[in-house]
Amino acid sequence: MSLPLELPARQLIVQKFGGSSVADAAGIKRVAERVVATQRAGHEVVVVVSAMGDTTDELLDLSSQITDEAPAREMDMLLSAGERISMALLAMAISKLGAKARSFTGSQAGMITDGIHGKARIIDVDPHRVRTALDKGAIAIVAGFQGVSRESHDITTLGRGGSDTTAVALAAALNADVCEIYTDVDGVYTADPRVVPTAKKIDRISSEEMLELAASGAKILHLRCVEYARRFGVPVHVRSSFSQHEGTWVLPSPDDTITISEGVALEQPIISGVAHDRSEAKVTVVGVPDIPGKAAAIFQVIAKAHANVDMIVQNISTFGRGKTDISFTLPIIEGADALTALKAAQDEIGFEDIEYNAEIGKLSLIGAGMRSNPGVSATFFQALSDAGININMISTSEIRISVVTRADLLDDAVRAIHSAFNLDSDAEATVYGGTGR
Amino acid sequence: MSLPLELPARQLIVQKFGGSSVADAAGIKRVAERVVATQRAGHEVVVVVSAMGDTTDELLDLSSQITDEAPAREMDMLLSAGERISMALLAMAISKLGAKARSFTGSQAGMITDGIHGKARIIDVDPHRVRTALDKGAIAIVAGFQGVSRESHDITTLGRGGSDTTAVALAAALNADVCEIYTDVDGVYTADPRVVPTAKKIDRISSEEMLELAASGAKILHLRCVEYARRFGVPVHVRSSFSQHEGTWVLPSPDDTITISEGVALEQPIISGVAHDRSEAKVTVVGVPDIPGKAAAIFQVIAKAHANVDMIVQNISTFGRGKTDISFTLPIIEGADALTALKAAQDEIGFEDIEYNAEIGKLSLIGAGMRSNPGVSATFFQALSDAGININMISTSEIRISVVTRADLLDDAVRAIHSAFNLDSDAEATVYGGTGR
Repeated sequence: MSLPLELPARQLIVQKFGGSSVADAAGIKRVAERVVATQRAGHEVVVVVSAMGDTTDELLDLSSQITDEAPAREMDMLLSAGERISMALLAMAISKLGAKARSFTGSQAGMITDGIHGKARIIDVDPHRVRTALDKGAIAIVAGFQGVSRESHDITTLGRGGSDTTAVALAAALNADVCEIYTDVDGVYTADPRVVPTAKKIDRISSEEMLELAASGAKILHLRCVEYARRFGVPVHVRSSFSQHEGTWVLPSPDDTITISEGVALEQPIISGVAHDRSEAKVTVVGVPDIPGKAAAIFQVIAKAHANVDMIVQNISTFGRGKTDISFTLPIIEGADALTALKAAQDEIGFEDIEYNAEIGKLSLIGAGMRSNPGVSATFFQALSDAGININMISTSEIRISVVTRADLLDDAVRAIHSAFNLDSDAEATVYGGTGR
Repeated sequence: MSLPLELPARQLIVQKFGGSSVADAAGIKRVAERVVATQRAGHEVVVVVSAMGDTTDELLDLSSQITDEAPAREMDMLLSAGERISMALLAMAISKLGAKARSFTGSQAGMITDGIHGKARIIDVDPHRVRTALDKGAIAIVAGFQGVSRESHDITTLGRGGSDTTAVALAAALNADVCEIYTDVDGVYTADPRVVPTAKKIDRISSEEMLELAASGAKILHLRCVEYARRFGVPVHVRSSFSQHEGTWVLPSPDDTITISEGVALEQPIISGVAHDRSEAKVTVVGVPDIPGKAAAIFQVIAKAHANVDMIVQNISTFGRGKTDISFTLPIIEGADALTALKAAQDEIGFEDIEYNAEIGKLSLIGAGMRSNPGVSATFFQALSDAGININMISTSEIRISVVTRADLLDDAVRAIHSAFNLDSDAEATVYGGTGR
């Protein structure tokens, strides 16, 4: 493997810094130095910034002093002030270092969204003002997390992970060579280093695998950002803002990942890592009449309650009884609404009872070529069995196996699987910061 | 006199609230109640707000931690975040009271300016989004102090008094019935009540007279705002945000003021009030060659130093000497630059010396019909003489007499003139708050 990737001498680089990187004047100056160094190395630089550390919390506190039911449009107007502050200060810090900088709000940078305040989706990007700033030799700074509604021209915000999504969307629209996501850990690991101290940093991973990792509970990159990167073919480099080390490259085309894994036979499965998630609960609808349409009726009720179902298992109908059980998982925070909706529909659907269990954990093994290698599932289930871990539910995709276990056994399960697939490194991982954003 | 003015039952009212009115959540709620009450009385309401109390200072402090030389474009981007916060919170507070509200940035409200960051001038107003919000029954909230450059589409700020100017400009563009400026005193007084306790609140004043008052040191309304109101014929109502009392109406057409001053013979001078100002210094250029072009040369030097000259007096040439002295006043804060520039040009212009005196005060008497009444100046100078006050410089306009005195005699001079023109009321004025914005 030869790292870094060979890229053109003069690149267009999008760099995204989160709120903890620009939490105070000192942090803003440090980011400015990194950005200016990148430009002085001969590259064009676009910087996407979040609001400073506590700004969003302070603004939310102000609004809660006024009302518990703020109109979503005005909440977006309020929160979007945060990036306006951080980006202007960053532009000043860059200017102080002798480089040119121009800051742009989401609207000015052409981040066109739908009109769903609080969780708007990007529907178009017109970065001509950003491009013009670059052409004039300036570093362009763009407010993350925000855009403007195409219909109403109102300010919108993108919701969780929004600044990462802004960065990837801009990188796609500008045809950037790379989108660098700066964070407080130095890349994506084969498992959460807090659970598995011998977890290894992944040098390269396909965006498909990263998508499964993110969807399975890895918090390092938000699902939407990875989806966007995959769809538009944007190379993403996740790296630490506290070091100069290479982080993890998330590469859009499967061909890229296969060709760079030299020395590994193409037909061998490539295991990327183990993800885990404690944020879900399991619901079992007991004694559902085993006739067509009953499963559909249940999930229509769940959908109307705006709950996002993850795994689904239908038990085999008990012989002669004409009834079956249906189990599914969903985020704990959506559990109450879903249960209320189901209970209201009990008579209509005709099931007997509901069981609810929030004390579960989900473990997922992600890797390309997994499905066509029966040995992978054999090794997987043997390892769990050897560790004495009982399995509640199973779900698989082309590049993933997920199981649900008891919550208190989850960490043991992660370590058992990580070892069984020889992912352990010799050294313990260095963990920076706290939550891994 | 019949107050209030008879206005149409359904009015379009622009209400402007300063930073001290929206300093915290309680203040924002109080403003919301006032605004909603105005709408429920049957009117259309547009609200212009400044940034919350300390916000601007906090943002300036952040920028000073980063650099002493912030680019003006980025400083405008930074400071404009302040109104975005206050207006979104006000919209939430209005919504909490059950009314509809829509907040708009300067750019969204169509405040088009030139590109002079930090002191941009409004060159066009296109309030179609504000108008649409009103048509839908909403209260429109507009960020004061900010606009967008027509050329660059960058965010601009309007400088001192900017939010008042925003309010008047919007009122003009929307053809509003009145622009209400809420402040912490209950109107414009015949003199500063802190100097003249018997000063009376002025019920009505022409915008010409208000212009002279503002230019002569009255701080209640900013000069630019009054100029705008006068040019576009906007009736302005200056009133207290702490009471429901009528304040002072500033009315655009001289005819309005004359017709409403019933019982006063039209040929009699109408004295509006006495203004004073301690912010200026006097510069005397001594021994200027008394030949054509020397005065022009001096003021070209001053203009290049970006100093704003107020009063100018050229002394009578001393017989036989061929030299003259030229005195002028200018803001103290511009004094140093002007002196440096003048000294650099001493040889070229050929004057002998420069004298500088910051210990001066300016007193101005303002009233319509003053010039055509010789009795006014007679009374004016007699009163100063009786009070033992020596006069340094004199300047007059159609509706104003100004004199420069020693700074320590200025308050005595203001009281003497106020009494001489029978402006004293029987009761002492109520002074709210501190600085009178």
